[in-house]
Amino acid sequence: MPRIDGARLMADLAALRAFGRCGTGVDRTALSAEDIAARRWLAGRMAEAGLEPRMDCQGTVLGRGAAARALLIGSHTDTVPKGGWLDGALGVVCGLEVARTLGAGIDIISFQDEEGTFLPCLGSRAFIGDMTLAEIEAARARDGRTLSDALAAAGLHGTPLRAEPGRYRGFLELHIEQGPVLEETGHDVGIVTGIVGYRRWRIHAKGRADHAGTTPMALRRDAGATLLRFAADAATQLLAAGGGTETVWNIGWISFSPGASNVVPASAELVLEFRDLDALVLARIEAWLCRRLAADTSLAGEEITHFAPTPMDPALMAALERAAAKNGARHLRMPSGAGHDAMILARAMPTAMLFVPSIGGRSHDPAEDTAEANIVCGCQVLCDAAEALIGD
Amino acid sequence: MPRIDGARLMADLAALRAFGRCGTGVDRTALSAEDIAARRWLAGRMAEAGLEPRMDCQGTVLGRGAAARALLIGSHTDTVPKGGWLDGALGVVCGLEVARTLGAGIDIISFQDEEGTFLPCLGSRAFIGDMTLAEIEAARARDGRTLSDALAAAGLHGTPLRAEPGRYRGFLELHIEQGPVLEETGHDVGIVTGIVGYRRWRIHAKGRADHAGTTPMALRRDAGATLLRFAADAATQLLAAGGGTETVWNIGWISFSPGASNVVPASAELVLEFRDLDALVLARIEAWLCRRLAADTSLAGEEITHFAPTPMDPALMAALERAAAKNGARHLRMPSGAGHDAMILARAMPTAMLFVPSIGGRSHDPAEDTAEANIVCGCQVLCDAAEALIGD
Repeated sequence: MPRIDGARLMADLAALRAFGRCGTGVDRTALSAEDIAARRWLAGRMAEAGLEPRMDCQGTVLGRGAAARALLIGSHTDTVPKGGWLDGALGVVCGLEVARTLGAGIDIISFQDEEGTFLPCLGSRAFIGDMTLAEIEAARARDGRTLSDALAAAGLHGTPLRAEPGRYRGFLELHIEQGPVLEETGHDVGIVTGIVGYRRWRIHAKGRADHAGTTPMALRRDAGATLLRFAADAATQLLAAGGGTETVWNIGWISFSPGASNVVPASAELVLEFRDLDALVLARIEAWLCRRLAADTSLAGEEITHFAPTPMDPALMAALERAAAKNGARHLRMPSGAGHDAMILARAMPTAMLFVPSIGGRSHDPAEDTAEANIVCGCQVLCDAAEALIGD
Repeated sequence: MPRIDGARLMADLAALRAFGRCGTGVDRTALSAEDIAARRWLAGRMAEAGLEPRMDCQGTVLGRGAAARALLIGSHTDTVPKGGWLDGALGVVCGLEVARTLGAGIDIISFQDEEGTFLPCLGSRAFIGDMTLAEIEAARARDGRTLSDALAAAGLHGTPLRAEPGRYRGFLELHIEQGPVLEETGHDVGIVTGIVGYRRWRIHAKGRADHAGTTPMALRRDAGATLLRFAADAATQLLAAGGGTETVWNIGWISFSPGASNVVPASAELVLEFRDLDALVLARIEAWLCRRLAADTSLAGEEITHFAPTPMDPALMAALERAAAKNGARHLRMPSGAGHDAMILARAMPTAMLFVPSIGGRSHDPAEDTAEANIVCGCQVLCDAAEALIGD
């Protein structure tokens, strides 16, 4: 079995890290000067590897191999503001190393704006043709810049890259886990079973603003207290109502209005989200939520985000698993709790993902890191799986 | 027993309402043009009533009666932004009506800035000499204007009014209840037993920001969940731990940080306040709070506001109670859950307060109102109590 060149891989990762480096982290948001420079560097490395590079009008870079059919490997090189050095960059550079190791039959890609500076998964959605012009026209960054202006300023040309019909055997994405599970459980790689679905609900409570000194407790209509009772019930009942062992949920935002310490809250809101790979689990939790809201007329709620789970392709998962076993890599089947380009690609072709451990579970942060041994191991597993898949 | 002139009282209230009127409410914040104009009008009405008016350099207006000793009656004519038409104005105009009805022996006062546009109870604190120049120099409104600039712009002169030593038999303040108790329980007037003490605590929870999709529930340190458990315990245990029948408490503000729906809260804060007339009750609740904080190392708290209860003078309360009984007014002994100038005056002289019902408990709002019959009844009770006190 062909061996990847770990030193070459690490050297490329270090070279890519220099674009937008800030301390131990990287700031290379989509369409920034650093992002475009990194993509031009990547295209150069692809050409040196014998791939035919093409950067499209959005910045997505494809390195096309010589064969008529190919396995697509990649991820994204854009980052969140002040993000980590690996994240998607690791998957792109590992793909490049696999292509260098295996020769023909591999295409490498770095999709644009996976992180959603303007439009999440812009590049992968465009690549499979699941993106409208209206969305591109409406997209803008948090600071108000429109995607259209940013694209014009980047000086890119051509049309968006599209997957050639019939060309791809499938898509493999290697990514850092962005969570603590592999490290905590002592595994070398994660075989991603799917990308979890998630739902977000905004929960409102209605009450009446009263002076908190002059209004006896029994005469209040305290929206804050109503919402806190809901939150307490969620803490004790939500998982019991139908969650699986991997279900996660979160209340990340809460607000009382008018928000003064001496005024009984007139209204109160929180956002609750829950995630699972099993659509049935999500449905059972939603049923609990609807029953709980119906039980209190001061409460109301609405779903604000709904993503269905995306299972990974069983044949590609099996190839990754066999490659892990062949390398003696301790591997764990696990869902991905975060979204990835693979979630998009799975709509168009067989897709699978491989995780490597994140030290301390950190990501989207300059502290993000993965041990070199884990990086090299992950890349070798990816390479062996790719070899098996292109040989089929 | 002398009868007040209800029509004259209501006419004066209507005249005062014209200064800063906005819809059914009044906007007459301290030192605004409307506030100063209203105070000049008041001084004129005092002079017509045979009192010697004086407006000080801060806008506090005293109408001095002819006798060597006097009972002081009053409140404040400044309002909160877009406040109600009665609030403190009612107590000032009722005092004026009592002085007109009884003749000598009554001084009338309208203190400046009870509402704290610049400095809460500015006028009453200056009147009893409990105010430093440093406080005045540091005071500024929410919009940044300093008290010093506002005083200069108002064009007032002289020195702050000070209570003449030995002159006062005591202070009576009539005020709207600003709560729903008298209306709900069918009483005409409230005999205020004291102004409750209150304490405010800021409660912090510390955790760690984690991706809410990739971090299993068991591996999180969720500051939001910690704080919500604290709030749930407060709801079930705080009053049981030592609250009395009149204890009130509130969580009016809460915040999670970073506050994103897909990030486990790294820190969380709320402000808890509790009020009671009995210092022992406050101490028992505080003891519960300290035990609860000590039981969870992720929690911490600090007291940010501490006001001791202010009991009212028993002899003055008894005079108000006898006057209510004489008038057939259904009266209720009750604490004041809100602060008033009486809280300040009680440090310097025997002080009592009389409440009239607030329709729907509304106050600090254009919807604030009190039935005319309740206003006239309250003023007559005040008058009869004053007559008894100046005749002693």
